[in-house]
Amino acid sequence: MLMAHAGRVTASSTVRTPQGERSRAMRHRLMEATVESLVELGWSGTTTTVVSQRAGVSRGAQLHHFPSKLDLVVAAVEFLSERRRDDLTADLAEQPEQGRTRAVLDVLADHFTSPVFFAALELWVAARTDDELRAAVGPLERRIGRETHAHALQLLGVDESRGRNRQLVQATLDMLRGLGLAASLSDDRARRDSILDAWALSLDHDLEK
Amino acid sequence: MLMAHAGRVTASSTVRTPQGERSRAMRHRLMEATVESLVELGWSGTTTTVVSQRAGVSRGAQLHHFPSKLDLVVAAVEFLSERRRDDLTADLAEQPEQGRTRAVLDVLADHFTSPVFFAALELWVAARTDDELRAAVGPLERRIGRETHAHALQLLGVDESRGRNRQLVQATLDMLRGLGLAASLSDDRARRDSILDAWALSLDHDLEK
Repeated sequence: MLMAHAGRVTASSTVRTPQGERSRAMRHRLMEATVESLVELGWSGTTTTVVSQRAGVSRGAQLHHFPSKLDLVVAAVEFLSERRRDDLTADLAEQPEQGRTRAVLDVLADHFTSPVFFAALELWVAARTDDELRAAVGPLERRIGRETHAHALQLLGVDESRGRNRQLVQATLDMLRGLGLAASLSDDRARRDSILDAWALSLDHDLEK
Repeated sequence: MLMAHAGRVTASSTVRTPQGERSRAMRHRLMEATVESLVELGWSGTTTTVVSQRAGVSRGAQLHHFPSKLDLVVAAVEFLSERRRDDLTADLAEQPEQGRTRAVLDVLADHFTSPVFFAALELWVAARTDDELRAAVGPLERRIGRETHAHALQLLGVDESRGRNRQLVQATLDMLRGLGLAASLSDDRARRDSILDAWALSLDHDLEK
């Protein structure tokens, strides 16, 4: 469906050349392969060689788009975070008004247990002991953090200037990050669901609408 | 002071031999050096050679006590988690009854931003993509998790069978883990304090005493 749509755009567009399309598709394959590699092999197992092989892209083309592993991993986490957020927004349009807080927690928890979260976690932890990586990941993490915060406020339908709303939404995101870290070692969905049930009641009581 | 005390114990004891004391001290130095190495150099930078050098222990003695990197890191995180918990218990005896919830959150947050937490984080994330490490870290993590949970209930003075207490304490620990992860990249103490202020109010309202 998406491919068919992309095909139509290409056919009808005089601005976007087939060359540009191919280049863009190649970048996307490289970014997807990078996140897959981070998820499956971790930070130290992810190399530019592994990524170009997985993406089916020549080493030359890969180096042209992303000269280093650092360029590749930062671009990949950024790109897939953005695409993931677009998905979240689409998901939310379908959430009911009743039980909305609990539904929003589920949507956000899906994000914090997604492949792109585990890929970001690899960068995050590696950056703690790698100055060059930290210089690149720090600003990216702060930006994604701000955007996720704004997004959560919107999903919950609350104004952050009221009461303790800002802190409670931050606490919720930190809790979801902690739950995501726990999910990285074992499937603890039942525990997570039970915690989110309890927390939704607290949020409904404490958030000022 | 601690050394002087240890000296008196050795001098007056007929059971604990100087040989046993030396061996125990060597193990402790190895475990401390392992955690320091994980904190400073991360999982991939930590090797048995680095650790024996830092601990001032011969390679032979190190291999005698801990035959592999896996043995060393698991023992180190376990040992220092236990010692850390003893410290927390001592800290808590000094907390006031008024504002106790907020004080407990501070004590727990100190744990989740301590060197041993960052060392455990290295193991945790490396274990996600390393089957052998996961087999060792999984049970350790669950045990530390259960003990920390029991400890938090005790510090907060609540019975987990009442109301949503169990889930709210779990949510608190997951939030603190998320805050610890955030603290690994940058010093965000002001943000953390503000979140814990808000969270303490919610807990005081929602926990059933």
